[in-house]
Amino acid sequence: MLQGIETPALLIDKPKLEANAARMKARADALGVVLRPHVKTLKSVEAAAIYAPVGSRITVSTLREAEVFAKAGYTDIFYAVGITPNKLERAAQLVKKGADLTLLVDTVEAAQAVSDASNKFGVPLSAMIEIDVDGHRAGLVWDSETLLPIAEALTASGRLRGVATHAGGSYNGKSLDDIADIAERERAMTVKAGERLREAGYEVRDVSVGSTPTALMARDHRGVTELRAGVYATFDLVMAGLGLCSKDDIAMSVLTSVIGHQPDKGWVLVDAGWMAMSRDRGTASQTVDQAYGLVCDVYGKPMPDYIVSMVNQEHGIITRRDKGAIKKSDFPYGSQWRILPNHACATAAQFDRYCVLDADQNQCGDWSRVNAW
Amino acid sequence: MLQGIETPALLIDKPKLEANAARMKARADALGVVLRPHVKTLKSVEAAAIYAPVGSRITVSTLREAEVFAKAGYTDIFYAVGITPNKLERAAQLVKKGADLTLLVDTVEAAQAVSDASNKFGVPLSAMIEIDVDGHRAGLVWDSETLLPIAEALTASGRLRGVATHAGGSYNGKSLDDIADIAERERAMTVKAGERLREAGYEVRDVSVGSTPTALMARDHRGVTELRAGVYATFDLVMAGLGLCSKDDIAMSVLTSVIGHQPDKGWVLVDAGWMAMSRDRGTASQTVDQAYGLVCDVYGKPMPDYIVSMVNQEHGIITRRDKGAIKKSDFPYGSQWRILPNHACATAAQFDRYCVLDADQNQCGDWSRVNAW
Repeated sequence: MLQGIETPALLIDKPKLEANAARMKARADALGVVLRPHVKTLKSVEAAAIYAPVGSRITVSTLREAEVFAKAGYTDIFYAVGITPNKLERAAQLVKKGADLTLLVDTVEAAQAVSDASNKFGVPLSAMIEIDVDGHRAGLVWDSETLLPIAEALTASGRLRGVATHAGGSYNGKSLDDIADIAERERAMTVKAGERLREAGYEVRDVSVGSTPTALMARDHRGVTELRAGVYATFDLVMAGLGLCSKDDIAMSVLTSVIGHQPDKGWVLVDAGWMAMSRDRGTASQTVDQAYGLVCDVYGKPMPDYIVSMVNQEHGIITRRDKGAIKKSDFPYGSQWRILPNHACATAAQFDRYCVLDADQNQCGDWSRVNAW
Repeated sequence: MLQGIETPALLIDKPKLEANAARMKARADALGVVLRPHVKTLKSVEAAAIYAPVGSRITVSTLREAEVFAKAGYTDIFYAVGITPNKLERAAQLVKKGADLTLLVDTVEAAQAVSDASNKFGVPLSAMIEIDVDGHRAGLVWDSETLLPIAEALTASGRLRGVATHAGGSYNGKSLDDIADIAERERAMTVKAGERLREAGYEVRDVSVGSTPTALMARDHRGVTELRAGVYATFDLVMAGLGLCSKDDIAMSVLTSVIGHQPDKGWVLVDAGWMAMSRDRGTASQTVDQAYGLVCDVYGKPMPDYIVSMVNQEHGIITRRDKGAIKKSDFPYGSQWRILPNHACATAAQFDRYCVLDADQNQCGDWSRVNAW
């Protein structure tokens, strides 16, 4: 089946990707908002055809993604990382070529830089104002005294699109109910920020919120216009640990081969090290720590007793979770296994192509990925 | 100076790289062994021109590296990861094209697979036998009863090159003296394995040892023929934490720009997240934990009070080490900083090109990198 595939390889289970895409689309429809998928997990035009076909609004994490997706026919692109001055010329070039690119700012200085660049490069640049709803990263609080000055600086020569937030704190939600509460705060604070701007006379087209956990658990989205989420397309062990999906929903795994054994230690050595899995240890703080990944058989069936406990650059060490003995004959030299990743975005970033599988677990595609910046 | 460079970018200080290369070359000369640099840190033909010019023996961590370096004129290439059956055809193709490729095995099954592939693909494949000197990963102990059976299986149709080890345990050395002791065990056990093979009538061309820490601290290398090391080319915070270099010797940094601030929290947000730094936390277990990297000014001068404490995909958060307040005016919006990496191999892997700087810190090159497998 997969014997012809050289390892390590990143596998995408296409039917699972399709099911995950349909689930989030149904959520957005039920909430009455437009879905703007974040393509940063797979960074693949071929993959996006499933969960964000051309014509969809999309979110990107780098200008290189924006350029690649623009070339593939996408127009409405939100680059959801606070813009720095040294990226503005490149952003302007993309707009000149026809992309409807939206930037992100959370300071008067950044808004001023966007406005200045609009003048300098002769094309109006659009931006959202980033709202901080949970203190986990960037943005300003909805009632900040700098909200209106940012809008003023931006609209001098640039364009205000609206307000956006990412409730990244939801990744540390204590329960699904807790995540639903986080989603409500995300909604309420972002809507209030938008209302403040509207009351001050600014046009606010988009009130944009999102994260996979809050998108799945939100009770309602009154006042929100669009929903952003990314990792739901493949899900991962962190999402499964939060209870947002099952392990069987995870559409991404790393195919690996057995290199050898250290029987005295209960170790199976495989050719998926941190270069394949990434160093992400996202489940370390969850109830069940999956180390560097959960082992599955070659068909993708999880084997909850086995994890990748240690990694070097090109070596992974599979052990039993209870550190017990492993029979060498259960993991023969050259046999293939799959590893579910902690964090799909980090694991996918280690690859430049994906091996795509159909429902029978036969290869049905080879998708490209755009890395770096 | 670097204002024209879009961030994040990986910077290589060429004079430091040259000095580090000269230091290790002098070590190998003093020890009377041939240096076989590991190119896995930078995976760049242009960089290797400095520390492993064409004509040098080299070590690689993937077959893709082997192919790219073979195309660039390198012939004597050691692929130092236990070979799996699904890579043997590709290895044979490389040998047929003229590469003097050496593989690595540590089981009778793998040796048999190499021998079988030599028959199947009509070209003798060479391999080293991997010796375990510190229980940290793969290999067999020097007095293992399977050493001779492996040699026998391998030489049925393949070729035995010798014995090789990597004293990866040296990364956890407690002191420089401890590392020197580890180096002596590395040497002694590998030499003994080679002697056992010679006594049994096998030709052992190479007795190959190495890791940057043991290479730098070894007291002598009697019986060793070649030395492998890789990360010394750029060094990193893990190596500095071990006392093997100073922070000023580190030739790699990530250039980043300030996106914004959270003044109440003492946070400076920058555009180098884990996608740029990697998730490697190699200094976490050292005396001084550098979190996700140590901040330097734009000229590369370390600022020991400032670290990248937290990372998301495209966001890094700089804080004071003592979590104290930071003056916004000390880190203005758009200002550029450099971050020294925990682990050079992991950080470099996040990039596809390097921005090379001369002694005046002006860009003097743009080097390519080969990623994936």
